[in-house]
Amino acid sequence: MSDPDIKPTDPPEIDGQTDTPEEVGLGTDMVGRVLDAMGADNEAAVRELVANLHYSDVADLLERLSGVQRRRLLEFAKDVLDPEVLAEVDETVLDEMIDHIGLDQVAEVVAELDTDDAVNVIEELEEDEQQHVLGAIPQADRTLIEESLSFPEDSAGRLMQREVMTVPAFWDVGKTIDYLRESAEEENWNLPDVFYDIVVVGPKHDPVGTIPLSLLLRTKRPVGVSEIMTSEMKLISATLDQEEVAFLFRQRDLVSAPVIDDTGRLVGMITIDDVVDVIDEEAEEDIMRLGGVREDDLYSATLATTRARFSWLFVNLITAILASAVIGLFQATIEQMVALAVLMPIVASMGGNAGTQTLTVAVRALATKELTTTNAMRQVGKEFMVGGINGLIFAVVMGAVAWMWFDQPMLGVVIAIAMIINLLVAGLAGASIPLALERFGIDPAIASSVFLTTLTDVVGFLVFLGLGAWLLI
Amino acid sequence: MSDPDIKPTDPPEIDGQTDTPEEVGLGTDMVGRVLDAMGADNEAAVRELVANLHYSDVADLLERLSGVQRRRLLEFAKDVLDPEVLAEVDETVLDEMIDHIGLDQVAEVVAELDTDDAVNVIEELEEDEQQHVLGAIPQADRTLIEESLSFPEDSAGRLMQREVMTVPAFWDVGKTIDYLRESAEEENWNLPDVFYDIVVVGPKHDPVGTIPLSLLLRTKRPVGVSEIMTSEMKLISATLDQEEVAFLFRQRDLVSAPVIDDTGRLVGMITIDDVVDVIDEEAEEDIMRLGGVREDDLYSATLATTRARFSWLFVNLITAILASAVIGLFQATIEQMVALAVLMPIVASMGGNAGTQTLTVAVRALATKELTTTNAMRQVGKEFMVGGINGLIFAVVMGAVAWMWFDQPMLGVVIAIAMIINLLVAGLAGASIPLALERFGIDPAIASSVFLTTLTDVVGFLVFLGLGAWLLI
Repeated sequence: MSDPDIKPTDPPEIDGQTDTPEEVGLGTDMVGRVLDAMGADNEAAVRELVANLHYSDVADLLERLSGVQRRRLLEFAKDVLDPEVLAEVDETVLDEMIDHIGLDQVAEVVAELDTDDAVNVIEELEEDEQQHVLGAIPQADRTLIEESLSFPEDSAGRLMQREVMTVPAFWDVGKTIDYLRESAEEENWNLPDVFYDIVVVGPKHDPVGTIPLSLLLRTKRPVGVSEIMTSEMKLISATLDQEEVAFLFRQRDLVSAPVIDDTGRLVGMITIDDVVDVIDEEAEEDIMRLGGVREDDLYSATLATTRARFSWLFVNLITAILASAVIGLFQATIEQMVALAVLMPIVASMGGNAGTQTLTVAVRALATKELTTTNAMRQVGKEFMVGGINGLIFAVVMGAVAWMWFDQPMLGVVIAIAMIINLLVAGLAGASIPLALERFGIDPAIASSVFLTTLTDVVGFLVFLGLGAWLLI
Repeated sequence: MSDPDIKPTDPPEIDGQTDTPEEVGLGTDMVGRVLDAMGADNEAAVRELVANLHYSDVADLLERLSGVQRRRLLEFAKDVLDPEVLAEVDETVLDEMIDHIGLDQVAEVVAELDTDDAVNVIEELEEDEQQHVLGAIPQADRTLIEESLSFPEDSAGRLMQREVMTVPAFWDVGKTIDYLRESAEEENWNLPDVFYDIVVVGPKHDPVGTIPLSLLLRTKRPVGVSEIMTSEMKLISATLDQEEVAFLFRQRDLVSAPVIDDTGRLVGMITIDDVVDVIDEEAEEDIMRLGGVREDDLYSATLATTRARFSWLFVNLITAILASAVIGLFQATIEQMVALAVLMPIVASMGGNAGTQTLTVAVRALATKELTTTNAMRQVGKEFMVGGINGLIFAVVMGAVAWMWFDQPMLGVVIAIAMIINLLVAGLAGASIPLALERFGIDPAIASSVFLTTLTDVVGFLVFLGLGAWLLI
């Protein structure tokens, strides 16, 4: 059944046929070719390479280059950049690009973006830069963007696109399709480029139902849209936090959802591609915060990164000094039995690690709403048990090691008891600290580990050295 | 423009109108009501509550209950459970459900699922259970599912659904829409329930292009599908790892993509909802592994969790003993100056924390392909600088503290030098270890932290005590 009418096409890109996984997305050799062309001062080649890349790959390319290379690339190719590149690059890189491209050209480029992408870019700018860029955008779009910006940062209102495909509830399938075909021919197509659901609206522009396009296509022309729409749809309030939006999309397997303002009027639509970015961001935030890093600072300059890391390290210094002060209480004991100093980091380290395991599970479970008030006590109890059992096992192992190492049975007993107690504390604290922080409205990811390791260090040193002073000296 | 023909609808659910974010999704009060109804032995009430919940919420409900409560709920309501619940629950809970419901009923339920969801459930079963369940599925679907299962775990082939909406390249828009309308009326609708793109196929069932539904709807009937299709689509090989699939979807803002086998024949379609789950899983895996937890063990029984955590703690014990052995080399030094024992954990702890910061950024950047061979050396160099600068600052601070605390200027100098060296090592190692592991094909998330903290502990103790022995005694 081959057909002569098929227009010749380029062979489609196939991913996964290669053994090097890195080559999915922007390939290393492509980066190399761009660098070579820049090195050879071959402006035409650079422009052609960049122009043929997908905008996401161009964003990745810009991010992977050094500051100097990036500026050079922009010099060569700034006028062949897809506007979407601005919406894709990391904040730090965006700042640099704006400095280099200049606000006027940025304004021009932003004006070509969908409202949600435009908001993405504009919200990263300083107040006066925002005004400058907004000034360059046609009145109608500007109003929409300004409305979006009036919603809180990281809210559904910032995430939504303003262009929504809506039909009144009294239309039928035929009229809807005709409308779509006609508007496609008009000059000012202000409907979204791609959409997945049609929103059926009531007289006050209030959403009364949604219709997936695949259903619309399977329905005969005379059928009314209100007969096939789902009225049990999820409506999202424009002020809802983006983390909650992501949760809803994930939970309900949504691809798009209508957003309403506080009067119930339809103001926009959130689509899955924006939500995927949020899911990524939120997971990244948790990982970073658990690791004691404030933000994704891969692209920041060395000094900015140093400064960002400093504050967390400073907190750690204070808690480390606190733990040392505990050791300081037992100087006389250590002088009499130096083996205690040799062994004491083991107790602290095991407590810290066991606690971190529990903490990680708890922080993640809180983020995904798997840990709630319903099962909190059960989880804390379980972690206490886990700490107790592993504490017992490691007490026996480490007790034997310490006994043999220093040939003192009582030293083995002391470290065994200290191990059990510290692992019980670690289990209990690892589960309770994130729950308590969440209760007080503090992100459990950001502050949990510092509390936890301080506690396991202090308890570890105190119990081990205290028992040592009591039983061994 | 109100219309009397609109059928009366329930008020739609609105999320975000409440101040308690936990109430997005399954509400705590709903869990309470189910528990109350179970407590009152009110079977009818339990069944009604469960039947009215979305399947994702039922899955969450089952996960949040204790083992005893879960079995009781299943007793009451197992025949009103949506089949999709099986595809949504955590693996551990699924095992329990299967034990309780019995394989025969599971087989019946799985037969009702889409092929991708069915594969999701079946791949969790033991070999003999798989055969049992597959036996209950009608021949045609069974073959499709068995083919999916023949692809490697976590590959595109496992993720895809087999039902794809395809049209030959010589059709036009009108014929496509007519075909959709007609097949909707047929009994055995074996096209996907919901789809977002139509795949245009050549004579060998090879995909030659895709058409987003929103474009199909905007195009007039006589236009050929080959005129509006995108031939520059992303084709996914069935053996591609799911992590790479997720990267592609994210990168290209895809909602669905055709999957081909090694002959280039279309075998299925991956949709964004499955990819969102993968993105979640992969982020979860990174978080868990960085925290030293093997798997998401929130729902595991206490003993299973204890066992899973044990191995990591055991590795930590070995490395902690190694670090202690380093201290052991300096027993004589410590005996002469106990202040060294008091201060030594500070140097180790600062190194561990600084290294963890760097490590976290590097592991995450590797996972998101932001860190590649192109910029690896630059990042390692930057981290070395960051370590050096923060090392200098903390050297001054801690040197002064140690001097004043123990009234010994030279002790301050020793800890200052040790701090600088350990933070330099931490920065260098935090960036290089993940890169090296990745190079050797080991997941950097799983093994990085143990190498790192061993190194920063050993270097911290060695340098500080070594300098102490040399300069102070």
